[in-house]
Amino acid sequence: MTASTRAAFTADDYRARMARAVRDAEAAGLAGLLVAPGPDLVWLTGYAPPAATERLTLLVLVPGRDPALVVPTLEAPDAARATGAPAITLRDWTDGKDPYAATAALLAASGRFGVSDSTWSLHLLGLQRALPESSYAALSDALPMLRAVKDAAELELMAAAGAAADAAFEEIRAVPFGGRRESEVAADLAALLRRHGHEQVDFTIVASGPNGANPHHEAGDRVIERGDMVVLDFGGLRHGYGSDTSRTVHVGDPTDEERRVHDLVRAAQQAGYEAVRPGVACQEVDRAARAVIDAAGYGARFIHRTGHGIGVTTHEPPYMIEGEEQPLVPGMCFSVEPGVYLPGRFGVRIEDIVTVTEDGGRRLNDTTRELVVVD
Amino acid sequence: MTASTRAAFTADDYRARMARAVRDAEAAGLAGLLVAPGPDLVWLTGYAPPAATERLTLLVLVPGRDPALVVPTLEAPDAARATGAPAITLRDWTDGKDPYAATAALLAASGRFGVSDSTWSLHLLGLQRALPESSYAALSDALPMLRAVKDAAELELMAAAGAAADAAFEEIRAVPFGGRRESEVAADLAALLRRHGHEQVDFTIVASGPNGANPHHEAGDRVIERGDMVVLDFGGLRHGYGSDTSRTVHVGDPTDEERRVHDLVRAAQQAGYEAVRPGVACQEVDRAARAVIDAAGYGARFIHRTGHGIGVTTHEPPYMIEGEEQPLVPGMCFSVEPGVYLPGRFGVRIEDIVTVTEDGGRRLNDTTRELVVVD
Repeated sequence: MTASTRAAFTADDYRARMARAVRDAEAAGLAGLLVAPGPDLVWLTGYAPPAATERLTLLVLVPGRDPALVVPTLEAPDAARATGAPAITLRDWTDGKDPYAATAALLAASGRFGVSDSTWSLHLLGLQRALPESSYAALSDALPMLRAVKDAAELELMAAAGAAADAAFEEIRAVPFGGRRESEVAADLAALLRRHGHEQVDFTIVASGPNGANPHHEAGDRVIERGDMVVLDFGGLRHGYGSDTSRTVHVGDPTDEERRVHDLVRAAQQAGYEAVRPGVACQEVDRAARAVIDAAGYGARFIHRTGHGIGVTTHEPPYMIEGEEQPLVPGMCFSVEPGVYLPGRFGVRIEDIVTVTEDGGRRLNDTTRELVVVD
Repeated sequence: MTASTRAAFTADDYRARMARAVRDAEAAGLAGLLVAPGPDLVWLTGYAPPAATERLTLLVLVPGRDPALVVPTLEAPDAARATGAPAITLRDWTDGKDPYAATAALLAASGRFGVSDSTWSLHLLGLQRALPESSYAALSDALPMLRAVKDAAELELMAAAGAAADAAFEEIRAVPFGGRRESEVAADLAALLRRHGHEQVDFTIVASGPNGANPHHEAGDRVIERGDMVVLDFGGLRHGYGSDTSRTVHVGDPTDEERRVHDLVRAAQQAGYEAVRPGVACQEVDRAARAVIDAAGYGARFIHRTGHGIGVTTHEPPYMIEGEEQPLVPGMCFSVEPGVYLPGRFGVRIEDIVTVTEDGGRRLNDTTRELVVVD
């Protein structure tokens, strides 16, 4: 947690989030929630230990009982300083003791519990051993929308993170591309994100020429050449909330085909954006973007889902994907990022974060979606 | 993975490691091993995706079948470039498909499998759902010693990492401490570790005065004062292998009590080190160090285990802790790091990485263990 994130929310905010999580869990038929270090714990309590480890730290939320945090004694002083700590009973355990038995003592023996997705299997297996009659569901399956709808304060932070990423794009388009390695441009991008207030850089994809055809290529040793398309996809956390935007630029003048594919992706991204409004199923956003690319005959070259949610992480539910029937709700934030990938040649992706409003969608990224020519 | 780690091991090395893991699994009564991104995957295959995510990546090792890697299609090109890839069949899956069903098809329906500790619960629950008759054990419970015994090439890398951390200590003791924030000294330490070849810095604890009494205090805003004891505990990965050393320094002249407590911890650390030899149980190393501190009446102030294994992570089995009966084996590497913590006042910790040799132990850190006076 950064100091600025701490400042944004109070102990009462975290208390309210934990209370809502318990209510949502009950409504979903769960006997409680178990949350290990990670984004759910940050969102619920403001507590972010440096890393998830083999030593169990687990927030226990069960109806009718104050929130409890099982925490190694060594880390209890840090936990006690978390903004949400006043609403939480710390239950510390020392090396050599069995933290699973201590956790089990707080739980109904045959309950079904939601467990945060990234909880180590080591810990889940420890709980399953301590409570053989219990059962578990991943939090993103059981309560996928727990963090999905952002309140006004969160939306302000999301908008500020998006504006910071946009500012980074405005500066990166002015740097030289041709003749430099992808990794050098990526380092520039990371520095720009930090200069514009990001405390964490999650990814700075610079995928030039044929590398652009691999949607998850990061940034390598390839020297960018005149005539390359270059996919830029970058983001991270600013004041604890995520940014994520992609633009595809061209070094020097594009060919007609490059321009045509870029126009196509831009039209698909626009169609996805325009599909956003309350009550529409997530999959409709995917379908709207995909239909444009399908109609142009490039359907087989759009090889990923259209988008993912974003908040205290840069990758979370809801997902804009065929089969996701979750209706959009005002306050949700997610990416709309169609792409076309031509193996061995180039790729194009255009991505904005979009938030659902009462009557449609609002983009949190707004740099030009025209094909930018760089040097 | 850094380029240098890639260079250190070949596809045949990884093939041999995977073959041994399968043999060890069979000997432990397991039907196979399931390994998600993390240190076990790095050690077995050389493949280190940027992050573990909600998209399943899982190495499947079962007897009588080539190793298989279930991997998102998007990430398959990167996986195919891992050094160990020639020994592995890639089984990629695209967004929208069920990777748990695909994994289950490779497994015996009612088998018991070892699963890497940090595998997300989301993924373990997915497998438990796809194979309701299967059962699981955490890899560190089932095969705690899989990575514990280092071969000659690994020991060379461990020794080099230790020497690099020592070089960082020799330089940090010359910087000014008094009047600077802990976080500034920590930043110096991180820069020194990188300058001495670390590609990853895991921790740079600078715990001054009363902060030293919290063994897991990281480094904060406190301004270090003349008269402070300062615990330094730092390490990370260099060429893929870990360093971790602690020294406690004093700003200006120490008091008699400070010197006495430091001498006590030094004697305890020496006793722990001298207990190391093949066949001795891990807990004997803890007992040897603890006995010295107990005898001086400070037993209640030594509030953590004596040590932990180290290798491709800075924190792994075997643990030097009461109850751990695992015998030491030549090639094991672990910390010996007793401490004394006086709440509200100061702490002292001295830590070396020690490797087990045929006839005793060999320290991989060797800066002075005398109390160093800094400015």
